[in-house]
Amino acid sequence: MKQFTSVKDVSHLPALVKEALELKRHPYNYKYLGENKVLGLIFMNPSLRTRLSTQRAGMNLGMNVIVMDINKDGWKLETREGVIMDGDAAEHVKDAVGVMGQYCDIIGVRTFPTFENRAEDYAENVINQFIKYAGVPIISLESSTLHPLQSFADLLTITEYKKTIKPKVVLTWAPHPKSLPQAVPNSFAEWMSTAEDVDLVITHPEGYELDEKFTWNARIEYNQNKAFEGAEFIYAKNWSSYHQYGQILSKDRSWTVSADKMKLTNDAYFMHCLPVRRNVVVNDDVIDSPNSLIIKQAANRLWSAQTILKKMLEG
Amino acid sequence: MKQFTSVKDVSHLPALVKEALELKRHPYNYKYLGENKVLGLIFMNPSLRTRLSTQRAGMNLGMNVIVMDINKDGWKLETREGVIMDGDAAEHVKDAVGVMGQYCDIIGVRTFPTFENRAEDYAENVINQFIKYAGVPIISLESSTLHPLQSFADLLTITEYKKTIKPKVVLTWAPHPKSLPQAVPNSFAEWMSTAEDVDLVITHPEGYELDEKFTWNARIEYNQNKAFEGAEFIYAKNWSSYHQYGQILSKDRSWTVSADKMKLTNDAYFMHCLPVRRNVVVNDDVIDSPNSLIIKQAANRLWSAQTILKKMLEG
Amino acid sequence: MKQFTSVKDVSHLPALVKEALELKRHPYNYKYLGENKVLGLIFMNPSLRTRLSTQRAGMNLGMNVIVMDINKDGWKLETREGVIMDGDAAEHVKDAVGVMGQYCDIIGVRTFPTFENRAEDYAENVINQFIKYAGVPIISLESSTLHPLQSFADLLTITEYKKTIKPKVVLTWAPHPKSLPQAVPNSFAEWMSTAEDVDLVITHPEGYELDEKFTWNARIEYNQNKAFEGAEFIYAKNWSSYHQYGQILSKDRSWTVSADKMKLTNDAYFMHCLPVRRNVVVNDDVIDSPNSLIIKQAANRLWSAQTILKKMLEG
Repeated sequence: MKQFTSVKDVSHLPALVKEALELKRHPYNYKYLGENKVLGLIFMNPSLRTRLSTQRAGMNLGMNVIVMDINKDGWKLETREGVIMDGDAAEHVKDAVGVMGQYCDIIGVRTFPTFENRAEDYAENVINQFIKYAGVPIISLESSTLHPLQSFADLLTITEYKKTIKPKVVLTWAPHPKSLPQAVPNSFAEWMSTAEDVDLVITHPEGYELDEKFTWNARIEYNQNKAFEGAEFIYAKNWSSYHQYGQILSKDRSWTVSADKMKLTNDAYFMHCLPVRRNVVVNDDVIDSPNSLIIKQAANRLWSAQTILKKMLEG
Repeated sequence: MKQFTSVKDVSHLPALVKEALELKRHPYNYKYLGENKVLGLIFMNPSLRTRLSTQRAGMNLGMNVIVMDINKDGWKLETREGVIMDGDAAEHVKDAVGVMGQYCDIIGVRTFPTFENRAEDYAENVINQFIKYAGVPIISLESSTLHPLQSFADLLTITEYKKTIKPKVVLTWAPHPKSLPQAVPNSFAEWMSTAEDVDLVITHPEGYELDEKFTWNARIEYNQNKAFEGAEFIYAKNWSSYHQYGQILSKDRSWTVSADKMKLTNDAYFMHCLPVRRNVVVNDDVIDSPNSLIIKQAANRLWSAQTILKKMLEG
Repeated sequence: MKQFTSVKDVSHLPALVKEALELKRHPYNYKYLGENKVLGLIFMNPSLRTRLSTQRAGMNLGMNVIVMDINKDGWKLETREGVIMDGDAAEHVKDAVGVMGQYCDIIGVRTFPTFENRAEDYAENVINQFIKYAGVPIISLESSTLHPLQSFADLLTITEYKKTIKPKVVLTWAPHPKSLPQAVPNSFAEWMSTAEDVDLVITHPEGYELDEKFTWNARIEYNQNKAFEGAEFIYAKNWSSYHQYGQILSKDRSWTVSADKMKLTNDAYFMHCLPVRRNVVVNDDVIDSPNSLIIKQAANRLWSAQTILKKMLEG
């Protein structure tokens, strides 16, 4: 595996899931793969789960890990081509990436959308320059529009906890005080759609429709209560509008996931990628209930990362 | 050992001291204990000695170490229960900690008092949430009110350098331009009182009395000169007032530890936990004298940390 | 080797070059040297290449590596002697360094000039306090006036790519929007002069003369076009004025390295230490041409660092 930025980089998803769950049972069986190898993790944005879980994943495989917060430890990078660089940016991303590839055997990179220009964000300019110039495998630690390690971990969690062959999984929009990327819902929709043995329903207020290229296999339901009926998994997440790009169209607290709403489901598990705003996105009594999978989901971030790193080390 | 936040977590202090001094002679004998184990160090505040010595301690035991400055690399954490999280904090500490515990085998955490509310600071809300939610052993890298790794290192140093069975040890307040926590003096008093073979005297201007629950075995002496008489160790430290919580009641430079004052002692060693304001807390000619133990004290931070980590790895 | 701050710390330069190129062919042959050893890297300034390459170098030698950004992770250090420390600085550099030396077997440190006082910057006060107080070998990761790991990597690159016994190497000043240190050109001049089998020419506008103690073996040529004639290597770099210390005397874009100017050379290779301002220091068509060595130069940073660390570990 040479790059991991989307479910499209996976050749056979069921086999990958099986491999991850096997690795979870025997975490240290492949330490020889990482001998004399260095994993470089480049953060352009804050991170907690991704930062810690990916470091641990590399360590479990015997790799040395280098972490760099490029905007704090380094300097601002230019991402445009052909520019006269007499402004703030001290280095072009292609030079920085070409250099990183000389010191690291695999590079993970995290970048966020600018929200200034949807076409540019959705072109994934930054991570694509990493792929083009690094000369080593690149793993997305969340890009402008996708968060594949999260979605892979989510799929592992659903695989472990599902009670039926093809469970109803509901991705529900929820309110939030800030404008958030669409990366997690885009990616979740893409992975669930590819997984096939999932009945995916997405519910949100009108105007919050995601890019259809990720939701091709999902049903959209604007009535949250109706969407929750018979659900086996409720996956809550806020996102800002795709069509009115980056805007907050609603802060309607009636969309907060409550214990009452959970009663409409088929005793559903509650999921969220974290960090979560308690009592805004979801109420304490739901997230702290025995049906809450949030910590188990986060724990699976380690195994999704370790599986992808293993496949990259294998060539 | 499941937690280390105070001398109260130590079952038999003389045995722990012996174990640490033995480890100092043979630092790499227990590298097998840390195989496939990860130590996570979470800093909410700046740190130099603790940061470096605890990393080295983990490495000496064969552990992989992950360091995270949560306020810079991550985001602001909510610490209150039941709050509607629509403000600055992006994640609740209990969710963050629950997640960290999935990736780390032992977690160290450093937090400082807010100085806003004494009762809250002395309730140790933050580190107690780590203990409650992490599911793995927690080691204090300094909390709101205590700094046990420092005090343990101080006790090692006194054990190594004492000339009498029960030396007179003087903890002296000294001036400082800023308002500092009481964690180091509280902790020093608690450890020296527990050690028993120490004759502890605390000297400070009136109004700087520490919480009596830490000083139960110490004599208080308001006359610094009198306190210094016959002392074998002078331990200097500034702290802000406990009773007029967080306030600076004095910047009196006559309390600065000088060569003249050291002449009142029994050729005492000089100690300070560092960082130290030279020529404010203590004069250059004292801290640079052959009787100064500051670097040896700092060196013992490695062995106090490594001993505690070893006991946690042992189960 | 006890310190590495200048080519003067190298006893026999041709042997060191040979050793580095041998290490490049067999990177992992000396992992036993670093067993139970810790490399501490202290940054007072941003860094990308140095940060990553020196970490990797230590890892290749089997060392554990600790990185600390002292101004962000720690606090401001006092560097003057005998000061009453009641201002911003919380710790004296000599105390901090003395402590670091207790936890690290080798320390690398990066510091920049203040540009406030040339005599002080050129006295290298900070790195000299590291050498004086650490008690362990010190490696410069760039100091106020020199960048020896960069120059060593540059010499390796020239050794690998030179087509004649004694190639003409041209160090050319180039424009830049900000005031930059003289460390890279000083160091490059010093190393090329010491290497002997290099014909060094330095070209720059009048007023940009470097300190003569570094350029004793170079010819100065104020006409850039004339300097380029017959050159086998063009090494571009901006620096601020040494004589009108720290000032920008020119932003003349006619000094930008262009494809037309490169035609004056003997099909010269293009070199730059990075980060580089594209289309200000050098045009895209030069830096992206097959004759550009910038990535290979950066790759050699790993081998210069690893060679020096190896010599320090050997004693």
